[in-house]
Amino acid sequence: MQQRSEETRSRILETATQLFSQRGYDVTGVAEICAAAGVSKGAFYHHFPSKQAVFMTLLEAWLSELDAGFELIRRQSPDVSTAVVQMARMVGEVFQAADVRLSIFLEFWMQAHRDVEIWQTAIAPYRRYHALFAELIRQGIAEGSLRPVEPEAAARLIVSQAIGLLMQALFDPQGANWVVEVEQSMRLLMDGLSRSKEGSA
Amino acid sequence: MQQRSEETRSRILETATQLFSQRGYDVTGVAEICAAAGVSKGAFYHHFPSKQAVFMTLLEAWLSELDAGFELIRRQSPDVSTAVVQMARMVGEVFQAADVRLSIFLEFWMQAHRDVEIWQTAIAPYRRYHALFAELIRQGIAEGSLRPVEPEAAARLIVSQAIGLLMQALFDPQGANWVVEVEQSMRLLMDGLSRSKEGSA
Repeated sequence: MQQRSEETRSRILETATQLFSQRGYDVTGVAEICAAAGVSKGAFYHHFPSKQAVFMTLLEAWLSELDAGFELIRRQSPDVSTAVVQMARMVGEVFQAADVRLSIFLEFWMQAHRDVEIWQTAIAPYRRYHALFAELIRQGIAEGSLRPVEPEAAARLIVSQAIGLLMQALFDPQGANWVVEVEQSMRLLMDGLSRSKEGSA
Repeated sequence: MQQRSEETRSRILETATQLFSQRGYDVTGVAEICAAAGVSKGAFYHHFPSKQAVFMTLLEAWLSELDAGFELIRRQSPDVSTAVVQMARMVGEVFQAADVRLSIFLEFWMQAHRDVEIWQTAIAPYRRYHALFAELIRQGIAEGSLRPVEPEAAARLIVSQAIGLLMQALFDPQGANWVVEVEQSMRLLMDGLSRSKEGSA
């Protein structure tokens, strides 16, 4: 029974991912998710209190993956600049592999813009990444690889760059090889924050 | 008659701005715009072939303002870095003064994501700004103020930064003083692209 319950949960999550992406988060209802997943409403509400809860589960699973990857990269990198460039590459690859999630993420942000409660939830991970990169910048200054910039400002630069690239990858997928662009942009940005600047006079 | 026709056109544009922003581009219909503006459908279609045409007119007016400002700043700035920072400040102030337009812009992008024809129109100005900043970077390298970076990559960095900041200002308006953040971020970014880097060892 436990296994079957897990399968039902997974099927709801997979179906919701597809529907949110194809039709939009806003117009997709719980009834539609249930019908497409072949589960009863009772089974749905056994696992999730609402459609929003499904989305938050998808978002959290995705962010947990990112966090685990960031942690691994940080431990294996010789300095902060290298770590940030590697993180950018990883994010680029995740997005390329699963652009469906990009689309859901934006749709959810649109909702967040109109609903204060959703907004509070949506903004939390973004603020967490800002704090995480500010801490990395502090480490980079302490280890001597980065210039003595203002850590909060440099973190803003990194987070804004990531969001800006994400939006472009979403809206202009054919406009560039975004996996390459993300890595190249972040390398150029980190070069600019480094003590020794490649190509500098 | 000419003057009255101009007034009708302006009233349609102002009303559409309000409705798109309050209720969303998607759900606002031509009938609703006409009712709120107090004009007949005949008068509406005399001025605009469609709701999309109204939006494009709003977008183009806004971009023309930006372009004129950029042109003036470029002529008055001693070097490219100073020009880009001033442009960032101007964009920050425009957004602060009229966040209604930010919201419409994003809504339109959402539509663009689902409709190829709208997408073609929406992506054009963004690509134009990429080309404009690549040209500025080339000038900066030629004048000796910037490092010999790859102009296309540096332009991507600037455009991505602007888009990322715009998104954050839209979704987290209380999270920071965005006018200050935009200028500070762009200054840090341009410092990193400059030959003489403040605070560098």
